[in-house]
Amino acid sequence: MAPIKIGDYLFKRLRELGIRSVFGVPGDYELALLDLVEDNDLAWKGNPNELVASYAADGYARVNGAAAFVTTFGPGELSAYCGMAGHYAELVPVVHIVGYPTVNAVRSKAIMHHSLGTGKFDMYEQMAKHIMAATTVIDDVPTAASEIDRVLNAMMLESRPVYIGLSTDIAYETTSDGPLASPIRRALPPNEPDLEQKVILEIRKLLEKAKEPIIILDGGAVRSDVLPKTHELIKATGLPTFTTAMGKGGLNEDLAEYGGVHQGAGTHPQVKTAIERTDFVLWVGNFPSDFNTGEFTTIVPKSATIVDFQRFYVQIGEVKHHVSMKSDFLWPALGPFFRPGDVVIGETGTSAFGLCDSRIPEGVMMFNQTVYGSIGYATGAIVGVGQAIKESGGKWKRPILVTGEGSMHLTIQAIADMLRFDLKPIIFVLNNNGYTVERLIHGKTALYNEVAILDYSLLAKAFGPAFPSKYHGPIKTCGELTDLVNDPELGDANCFQLVELILPELDAPSAVIRTGAAIDEFNKSKFEKRTVPGA
Amino acid sequence: MAPIKIGDYLFKRLRELGIRSVFGVPGDYELALLDLVEDNDLAWKGNPNELVASYAADGYARVNGAAAFVTTFGPGELSAYCGMAGHYAELVPVVHIVGYPTVNAVRSKAIMHHSLGTGKFDMYEQMAKHIMAATTVIDDVPTAASEIDRVLNAMMLESRPVYIGLSTDIAYETTSDGPLASPIRRALPPNEPDLEQKVILEIRKLLEKAKEPIIILDGGAVRSDVLPKTHELIKATGLPTFTTAMGKGGLNEDLAEYGGVHQGAGTHPQVKTAIERTDFVLWVGNFPSDFNTGEFTTIVPKSATIVDFQRFYVQIGEVKHHVSMKSDFLWPALGPFFRPGDVVIGETGTSAFGLCDSRIPEGVMMFNQTVYGSIGYATGAIVGVGQAIKESGGKWKRPILVTGEGSMHLTIQAIADMLRFDLKPIIFVLNNNGYTVERLIHGKTALYNEVAILDYSLLAKAFGPAFPSKYHGPIKTCGELTDLVNDPELGDANCFQLVELILPELDAPSAVIRTGAAIDEFNKSKFEKRTVPGA
Repeated sequence: MAPIKIGDYLFKRLRELGIRSVFGVPGDYELALLDLVEDNDLAWKGNPNELVASYAADGYARVNGAAAFVTTFGPGELSAYCGMAGHYAELVPVVHIVGYPTVNAVRSKAIMHHSLGTGKFDMYEQMAKHIMAATTVIDDVPTAASEIDRVLNAMMLESRPVYIGLSTDIAYETTSDGPLASPIRRALPPNEPDLEQKVILEIRKLLEKAKEPIIILDGGAVRSDVLPKTHELIKATGLPTFTTAMGKGGLNEDLAEYGGVHQGAGTHPQVKTAIERTDFVLWVGNFPSDFNTGEFTTIVPKSATIVDFQRFYVQIGEVKHHVSMKSDFLWPALGPFFRPGDVVIGETGTSAFGLCDSRIPEGVMMFNQTVYGSIGYATGAIVGVGQAIKESGGKWKRPILVTGEGSMHLTIQAIADMLRFDLKPIIFVLNNNGYTVERLIHGKTALYNEVAILDYSLLAKAFGPAFPSKYHGPIKTCGELTDLVNDPELGDANCFQLVELILPELDAPSAVIRTGAAIDEFNKSKFEKRTVPGA
Repeated sequence: MAPIKIGDYLFKRLRELGIRSVFGVPGDYELALLDLVEDNDLAWKGNPNELVASYAADGYARVNGAAAFVTTFGPGELSAYCGMAGHYAELVPVVHIVGYPTVNAVRSKAIMHHSLGTGKFDMYEQMAKHIMAATTVIDDVPTAASEIDRVLNAMMLESRPVYIGLSTDIAYETTSDGPLASPIRRALPPNEPDLEQKVILEIRKLLEKAKEPIIILDGGAVRSDVLPKTHELIKATGLPTFTTAMGKGGLNEDLAEYGGVHQGAGTHPQVKTAIERTDFVLWVGNFPSDFNTGEFTTIVPKSATIVDFQRFYVQIGEVKHHVSMKSDFLWPALGPFFRPGDVVIGETGTSAFGLCDSRIPEGVMMFNQTVYGSIGYATGAIVGVGQAIKESGGKWKRPILVTGEGSMHLTIQAIADMLRFDLKPIIFVLNNNGYTVERLIHGKTALYNEVAILDYSLLAKAFGPAFPSKYHGPIKTCGELTDLVNDPELGDANCFQLVELILPELDAPSAVIRTGAAIDEFNKSKFEKRTVPGA
């Protein structure tokens, strides 16, 4: 055991979790802490604003397993709350480190800048508690190490974000490095063996009795990292297997068992027929949100028995058992256009729904933000994805972003980071002259669904004139697009590339059109409880 | 009395408060509500993201008296929390209207998009309560009108932000327009006459006894709109008058009584001498925050009697009386370069501190964000300022933004709105290769104080190719700057203009250098309570 600075203790824990880059925006309450980042062999990847930093951390964590970003007390942290709520809703383990005023400034109730001018300092942590698995503000040396460990353990157990406030002075106080000998627990604790055995037997009995059993791999399976186990299950049972909008990307669609995407009433007719006759569903990670169920609809018959596998329990029919799924980490196969090694983010809206329509081979990672659905997310998240790819030792190769132009405007300054960090993304901007998914829901020609008209050919030159970049477009026809996609110039250019695709205002995949209309109807009508399991 | 849609009721109240433009970003929970904006003769001014919308509303409210912006539940509102905390800390009356899921969706605990996927819906309002004067989520028709009135009255009484959540379905339910006959109360309630008389007599007695009385006009005077009253007081008494960083802009510096800026230990020597000998201070709107006091220092002698005028009380020595200042609305005079009719925003950091060094004539409005200090604020706020100027009927003329380049990066997409709303701002970008104010506090050459290097000459062409714009620069010498500032081409160009000023990395006004060093020392040292009145 040896003395160690509290700031160093924290950063050593981050390295232990596999984190190599730290995102964020500097501020005076955290500047001294940032001096310790490089001391601990972590790279500082500063961002143009805190929302971009939180999204970058999200992308990094999805590829790398965990991520961290640092902001300052008040404006810095509050600017990232949207990103943090997204980490929470989508089960992404990210630690948000917030630089606080000195311990004694806080205790004296001084009117410090970035406060509300009221002499209070606890309001921001109180706000964060609503969207965090755990929070702490380190203001006491003896408990500092155990508090850091407590919240980091919560982050890995729940696969959700945590908040660590650290006063600028306390980061340099010393504690013992003794606790570092016990690593942060990264796997779920094992199930109680007798209970696990009982649940397995019951499921096996039901499965043997079933006439038309199927498997549905849903969003919770992706977020709880049980994809390899689920694939073993599919191969072992040979059952017909389906996925959902949120599970899309988690399933190897080359499997003979693969049957298509369950989207409630919006399900394609041939897939529908296969699901409608089932009497038994092994539903891995059921997540009955509006966007994931075609606005709270299902085509699984009411009479069917459903076994619902969740992170912390398994439910058979109406009975819940506290037995959890097991965890590994692997991401799935997608997209005929994409190559093995690609990591693809589809922005919420047209892009994410659209990617559901394509069948995609193994070796591609793809994700979106189905539940929280913050537009602008994908443009920020690709920064973290790109950085994690660079650190992946060749395991991952190309960061690919598919986004509408309206969404991109929210976090467009992230382009500066893509360039200066040399991330070489391929960006497809669907320029459909406004918020198309909103138009499909309500206000087809309304002024409020218009956005600014930019010159996309100038963006890379404006945001990073010193770095190589290519603009392709405007692409207006299918022929132009086919030529471009088949051109090795695009796939292997090895620099920042932006493809501008010009689409009619209301052009969208059929699932978007169907779901958009359903949402407007839902928003107008009185809500009735629908028959979606778990909803 | 006649029936009226609840959404119309709300928007009629906004018009009553003088609001003519509504900012925001559309989302599906609010789209139907937005259809009512134009029905009520309000202009929709959509923004590229919610943080920009909240800053634009701030700028608009400071010029116009009140403002409103609309976002969607979850990601939309959370992206604006930084802006809302700024409204709170800086006493800016802004109503944030949030489009909620339908009442019955909420009651059924459905997993809707933009929620946390937990079936809960109250967490965002609970978070907002920490940074709002009042909040409500309208989910009940009979109380809808009284709830709207309650929070709007709180907004005007406290001069602080409020939050109105409105379910997408309830905006179209009808209520009675009867309450509209009673206007929202915009002035503070009158003081109790006997108490007011007693306090006035006591102050007059003390003033008559005083040997070297002075007046200090501070930040609270600006935010509580007592500037005309204070100017009458200065003229009536002929007392030497000083201001502070936060009060800067509130005082007509052409007055013979004007003596300079109190910045605690950082005060200029000749100003210091005049303040150090006082025995009696009429301190209007004392606001002893760190940035406003040269890091908690003062040069007013301990023996002096201080009368502290605040929004809701007057304190004489140690005794507090619940008598408030009176309210009017007028903004002050600044800057020899600036013309009457200019509205000038100085970004937190080098820009705001720097503007303290210049003596400025009457007829210019200038403000910054001294307490909350969110960088990126000024670039967003100039959108609202520009819009309010257009609606001011010629009272205000040119929106002028002074910002560092690092701050501008946070909200740079606001340039798209400046162009498409035809606001014609004049923007001075101080390009000093990074976060200069942070460098002066800590990390002079640190990597984390670097920012991306953009091509500022391309920004207007990238963000609004269809609109006229001019780029001036890069300006590298004092001679070039003098020539530019004297060129009527700059002052009268009547289009979007951006001036890029190249500065050495550590070039800053002396007050910034002194305060920066004081902050670093303060952050390192153990805090001791200093002798600042009210701190």
